[in-house]
Amino acid sequence: MSLGRLLLTGAAGALGRQLRPRLRPRCSLLRVSDVAPMEAAQSGEEVVPAALEDRAAMLSLLEGIDAVVHLGGVSIEKAFDVVLQGNIVGVYNLYEAARKHGVKRIVFASSNHVTGYYRQDEVIDANAPVRPDGYYGVSKAFGENLSRFYFDRYGIETVCLRIGSSFPEPMDRRMLSTWLSYDDLERLVVASLTAPVAGHTIVYGMSDNKSTWWDNTPARHLGYRPQDSSEPFRAAKEAAQPRLDLNDPAAIYQGGSFVHKGPFED
Amino acid sequence: MSLGRLLLTGAAGALGRQLRPRLRPRCSLLRVSDVAPMEAAQSGEEVVPAALEDRAAMLSLLEGIDAVVHLGGVSIEKAFDVVLQGNIVGVYNLYEAARKHGVKRIVFASSNHVTGYYRQDEVIDANAPVRPDGYYGVSKAFGENLSRFYFDRYGIETVCLRIGSSFPEPMDRRMLSTWLSYDDLERLVVASLTAPVAGHTIVYGMSDNKSTWWDNTPARHLGYRPQDSSEPFRAAKEAAQPRLDLNDPAAIYQGGSFVHKGPFED
Amino acid sequence: MSLGRLLLTGAAGALGRQLRPRLRPRCSLLRVSDVAPMEAAQSGEEVVPAALEDRAAMLSLLEGIDAVVHLGGVSIEKAFDVVLQGNIVGVYNLYEAARKHGVKRIVFASSNHVTGYYRQDEVIDANAPVRPDGYYGVSKAFGENLSRFYFDRYGIETVCLRIGSSFPEPMDRRMLSTWLSYDDLERLVVASLTAPVAGHTIVYGMSDNKSTWWDNTPARHLGYRPQDSSEPFRAAKEAAQPRLDLNDPAAIYQGGSFVHKGPFED
Amino acid sequence: MSLGRLLLTGAAGALGRQLRPRLRPRCSLLRVSDVAPMEAAQSGEEVVPAALEDRAAMLSLLEGIDAVVHLGGVSIEKAFDVVLQGNIVGVYNLYEAARKHGVKRIVFASSNHVTGYYRQDEVIDANAPVRPDGYYGVSKAFGENLSRFYFDRYGIETVCLRIGSSFPEPMDRRMLSTWLSYDDLERLVVASLTAPVAGHTIVYGMSDNKSTWWDNTPARHLGYRPQDSSEPFRAAKEAAQPRLDLNDPAAIYQGGSFVHKGPFED
Amino acid sequence: MSLGRLLLTGAAGALGRQLRPRLRPRCSLLRVSDVAPMEAAQSGEEVVPAALEDRAAMLSLLEGIDAVVHLGGVSIEKAFDVVLQGNIVGVYNLYEAARKHGVKRIVFASSNHVTGYYRQDEVIDANAPVRPDGYYGVSKAFGENLSRFYFDRYGIETVCLRIGSSFPEPMDRRMLSTWLSYDDLERLVVASLTAPVAGHTIVYGMSDNKSTWWDNTPARHLGYRPQDSSEPFRAAKEAAQPRLDLNDPAAIYQGGSFVHKGPFED
Amino acid sequence: MSLGRLLLTGAAGALGRQLRPRLRPRCSLLRVSDVAPMEAAQSGEEVVPAALEDRAAMLSLLEGIDAVVHLGGVSIEKAFDVVLQGNIVGVYNLYEAARKHGVKRIVFASSNHVTGYYRQDEVIDANAPVRPDGYYGVSKAFGENLSRFYFDRYGIETVCLRIGSSFPEPMDRRMLSTWLSYDDLERLVVASLTAPVAGHTIVYGMSDNKSTWWDNTPARHLGYRPQDSSEPFRAAKEAAQPRLDLNDPAAIYQGGSFVHKGPFED
Repeated sequence: MSLGRLLLTGAAGALGRQLRPRLRPRCSLLRVSDVAPMEAAQSGEEVVPAALEDRAAMLSLLEGIDAVVHLGGVSIEKAFDVVLQGNIVGVYNLYEAARKHGVKRIVFASSNHVTGYYRQDEVIDANAPVRPDGYYGVSKAFGENLSRFYFDRYGIETVCLRIGSSFPEPMDRRMLSTWLSYDDLERLVVASLTAPVAGHTIVYGMSDNKSTWWDNTPARHLGYRPQDSSEPFRAAKEAAQPRLDLNDPAAIYQGGSFVHKGPFED
Repeated sequence: MSLGRLLLTGAAGALGRQLRPRLRPRCSLLRVSDVAPMEAAQSGEEVVPAALEDRAAMLSLLEGIDAVVHLGGVSIEKAFDVVLQGNIVGVYNLYEAARKHGVKRIVFASSNHVTGYYRQDEVIDANAPVRPDGYYGVSKAFGENLSRFYFDRYGIETVCLRIGSSFPEPMDRRMLSTWLSYDDLERLVVASLTAPVAGHTIVYGMSDNKSTWWDNTPARHLGYRPQDSSEPFRAAKEAAQPRLDLNDPAAIYQGGSFVHKGPFED
Repeated sequence: MSLGRLLLTGAAGALGRQLRPRLRPRCSLLRVSDVAPMEAAQSGEEVVPAALEDRAAMLSLLEGIDAVVHLGGVSIEKAFDVVLQGNIVGVYNLYEAARKHGVKRIVFASSNHVTGYYRQDEVIDANAPVRPDGYYGVSKAFGENLSRFYFDRYGIETVCLRIGSSFPEPMDRRMLSTWLSYDDLERLVVASLTAPVAGHTIVYGMSDNKSTWWDNTPARHLGYRPQDSSEPFRAAKEAAQPRLDLNDPAAIYQGGSFVHKGPFED
Repeated sequence: MSLGRLLLTGAAGALGRQLRPRLRPRCSLLRVSDVAPMEAAQSGEEVVPAALEDRAAMLSLLEGIDAVVHLGGVSIEKAFDVVLQGNIVGVYNLYEAARKHGVKRIVFASSNHVTGYYRQDEVIDANAPVRPDGYYGVSKAFGENLSRFYFDRYGIETVCLRIGSSFPEPMDRRMLSTWLSYDDLERLVVASLTAPVAGHTIVYGMSDNKSTWWDNTPARHLGYRPQDSSEPFRAAKEAAQPRLDLNDPAAIYQGGSFVHKGPFED
Repeated sequence: MSLGRLLLTGAAGALGRQLRPRLRPRCSLLRVSDVAPMEAAQSGEEVVPAALEDRAAMLSLLEGIDAVVHLGGVSIEKAFDVVLQGNIVGVYNLYEAARKHGVKRIVFASSNHVTGYYRQDEVIDANAPVRPDGYYGVSKAFGENLSRFYFDRYGIETVCLRIGSSFPEPMDRRMLSTWLSYDDLERLVVASLTAPVAGHTIVYGMSDNKSTWWDNTPARHLGYRPQDSSEPFRAAKEAAQPRLDLNDPAAIYQGGSFVHKGPFED
Repeated sequence: MSLGRLLLTGAAGALGRQLRPRLRPRCSLLRVSDVAPMEAAQSGEEVVPAALEDRAAMLSLLEGIDAVVHLGGVSIEKAFDVVLQGNIVGVYNLYEAARKHGVKRIVFASSNHVTGYYRQDEVIDANAPVRPDGYYGVSKAFGENLSRFYFDRYGIETVCLRIGSSFPEPMDRRMLSTWLSYDDLERLVVASLTAPVAGHTIVYGMSDNKSTWWDNTPARHLGYRPQDSSEPFRAAKEAAQPRLDLNDPAAIYQGGSFVHKGPFED
């Protein structure tokens, strides 16, 4: 099933570089965008540099597009003003452009840091009240809420992916619970793009890890079934961190080290 | 474990013809019934034509029976008067006959159309308030409620199967989520008949499809574990319906095209 | 605020006779109907005998009507065939007539017997799965479900009143919990007719009794606030029934003596 | 119980002008602020003009303050860029200033428009997922989430008041459900300031109206008990709007006319 | 309605001394018991000293009794061995004696300390998992659980009163939320004894205080309606404790100073 | 990942004898204890006889220990005084010893009998209110509650294992739902000891049986994934018990035959 004319933002980032070649063969056109340098366009691709905070550039960027995978913006905890431009102004620009061009579906890379202040011994689902662990988490919650509004008002569908930790492999014990393999990331994005009815759905982006803090039951309609697991990495990760300091909030809360970031100097 | 003396109604229908040979070897006696012509009785079988709305015939039909698989009645959306006879009067006749003869357990073919007005981007379980999508769905809700009463009052156990779409294979994109293979249907019926304690249980009848709208957690005690999946049919079904019209209620609601049936002329 | 052209069914029954004079001054026209003899029409009234099971008569009955208060049908536990005609066929006839005439809102007298098999030491709300205590309760659940369908499909709004015990005063200890005074009944019906948005709402019909089994939080949008209480009757009722036999299901279950009615001979 | 050194922002607005004289006698110092002209300082007051988006001004504004009542910012639906400055940048500036000065509690004027896309026949509580009805609602959700973060990270307590409609009297039928009298507003603010433990609490700001869409059970610990009601205004408001057009989203959704605001031209 | 032959344990304690004269006129016989000295028997009373941990004495104590109000045992945090005898062994002895003598209902003085580790900005109901704040709270949870077993197995009904703070008046700010006046205590005990069906019910014992941490909705069937309030004492209590130290667990948790008791030396 | 210096109580029992050789190679030291005779110490082991009710012995027993697997105590329904010593006094002694020695984590063998009075057609999770089926179940609930207190007060983490039926194979039809293989028991204990953050967690101990009454979603963070199933034993068990008597509480309730144990003579 062709994904049609697809826009991938944040194409120069780690996940963007993974998804670009995986999505390309599924699209009639893959337009990729970022502010950082990107690889040259291959057949079936358009490479369009654009800053999320540049409203006019964003409006142009979405012209003729059927659907968007929005990875762009700030992806780690940073000073508020930085997060503000990329993840608040930028997301507004994206949705307004989508509205004006009649784009019907957006896959929005949200983050587990929207709920980073839940404990690691709690299992929550996407209906739990948000508890962001920093400006980044707050900004991702903003994007989830703005997209909810664009669905309720304008019918633009969004799947919000609260991505755990998407890396080649888990990097520490926390990621045994939060890891999302690149293959499962691809599965999740494709399921989100191809589900017949997406409405406004929030789903946690994780592989089939043995231990997990999130229950994706409310998003089963998407048809996402992870096939990878952090388990093969467990022994090595446990050996590297045999004991955690449970007086350290980073060891207790789901957000991990994000709960220590900041405050930032103005 | 023998199913004892079992009555199968609706034996001439598509699902009845599937279940009849599958159940026969598990029973000491399999009595099959329908108003439509049925195959001749094989060894261990009795073929007893009977109309559900014929109270006396139904009373005779249940004589000497241990358990019932009730597939009989109207199985699609029809004018109210038709549904009334088969699915309301008929179900009453069945339960009264069961009460008089001391039948202990009934597996009742209910339908996902009992909750057909939930959206396809919602995941519900059997405790969600009903939202039927037509007279058929309303009549199946009636059967669920009547059987609840017969359990609370008389101790007759019922498992209500809210069957999704039981066909040789999924016929469209919607059925990727709702498909129940014939083998899984058999597993579900057998689990319902053999669970030591059934009480009054409602379970959705679906295979292990990747995408689903229903959560069967409250019915795990039955021991039903589907082994088939709609996944092998996905590519073909998506290719045949690459885009759905989300302005069409049939594309949005779980009930699919049932939400367009009627109104019927008197 | 005028209630416009209002139809009151069951006008010859106990509650109908109470509501008729109370509703009359609020309407531009009050059409009253029953199969039993009714008082002659007063100014602003039309008296139209009609049987609920007479489809043509019902179609005529709803002509030119803005809203309906449907008290008609069987209001106690009876043999199934009786309940079937009044409360199943009759309700279908009513809603079909409403649909054909464009009636926008119906206040439907349901019953606490829809959930009569909950225990008297349980507090439930309208989202709890139904547990009817007889054919009457099952038939009222049918009406609730059919009206849900007519709302989801055709936008006809219904407020289902799960009436407790509406009498001049509580008649036994059970009614200390279930009593609905006539004045509160009027308040509830008027609130249901005048709420700007009713959607499909289920509310328990009870006064502000000290003890209660039902939580009307989900229906607070209606603006119903009872002003009467069973409390003044408590001492007398407790004196008359100082000890209940807790081995008697009628003493334990919310449905009271209804749990003993039947089985009925055909 | 003295409220200590209190800052009131948005002091020139309609609610600010109401609260200023009511709070003054309860404080050791009342500092009032706005960008619009304010009345001259009376005894016990300081008048400090400041723009929310001016970070340095905000930092000065909170110096020596014990608690804040934050009414400042945009209070109706406006173009995104306007909302962004007042309600996103401005709230960030406020909380950073509070953190730097060790302010311990903030009462934050949020809005019912955070959940404006729920229907008027639904009753929700503060744990329901947000469904904002515009940029204003999205911005208020941002403030709620940011304040949650400042509580989880820095222990700054916030009570978020999802104010319904605070006017001298209800202005239309919708406000029969959403009205918050000025006296009840004062009660709510005082309760929020004086509750021994506020943590991070969200409460709907409404009087004791007969009809309501919100359940404040989760915030009962605050000790807010409204004493006014929209009921005396009901007859006049119903007479003025006897029938609503239920095809109009403004009549159906809790957000009322806000669901029609925008889109705004850049 | 006579309470019949009633046993009151803990009759020498503060609450026992309050309830004794209030219950006496309602009983055909009031037997009072304690290990501490009690007032001499008045007409209609029997005074029977007995230690809860003395099994034989307890068996005698319940002879000929219809119902029990069990206030006896340890009512504050103490060393485990003390709590063990009074509240664990003692409660077992009581229920075994009740079982042997066919006593049908027990009102058991449990405590809010069963859930003392919830925060003061949380509102819970009796279905929330227990979080006791000490041995006393753990022992009261034991009593609740043991009584649940005696109901499920033997049909002995129990109402567990999770009493807040029952004193002549609130003694500090915490008790503004937890206060139970003596009159309301009496109302609660009488409601618990006279409810037709009590089953096994847990209810928080509090007056109609403005601020509260507990939601008694699940126990509304009892018919308990408090008529007193801590509000008249608010100003004085707030003046006495204008600021609490939110770094002190006793200020944050519902259990108050109980969270500081112990550890106890053996 | 080494389990460090581990104490295993109840080492002479059936489960203790299974776990001892399985845990030994994972520990730097395995101290085993019981009142019954145990096998001689092997390399890496210490064998320390101790009675749970002997406070001093328990204090010595936990010296130098990092974590405990507490299987000791009474493991079947017995007279109250027996259960009291082993499972109430004994658990208190254990936790006090752990507190004094700074032990950080305890795996506590609780039991499904804590919730044995739920029906076999109900599926519950660990947040459901307890419904113990005897003194044994009540005592295990005591242990769960005491450990909750030691976590909330002292930060000692506990994983409560509500073990189903851990035997070499299922012994009857009930155990098809409750069986926990020895290998899965080991997996569960190891997951509980090695989860980075355990907090206070309750998990049902069962294999991946087709039919189940328990939902472990709230404990997914532990990373326990059973790999065995009762399914291979189903045919034999069903053949041995083709029909159960549903008038027998032991056939209906989850606790099985425990609901028949007792009353015990003093």
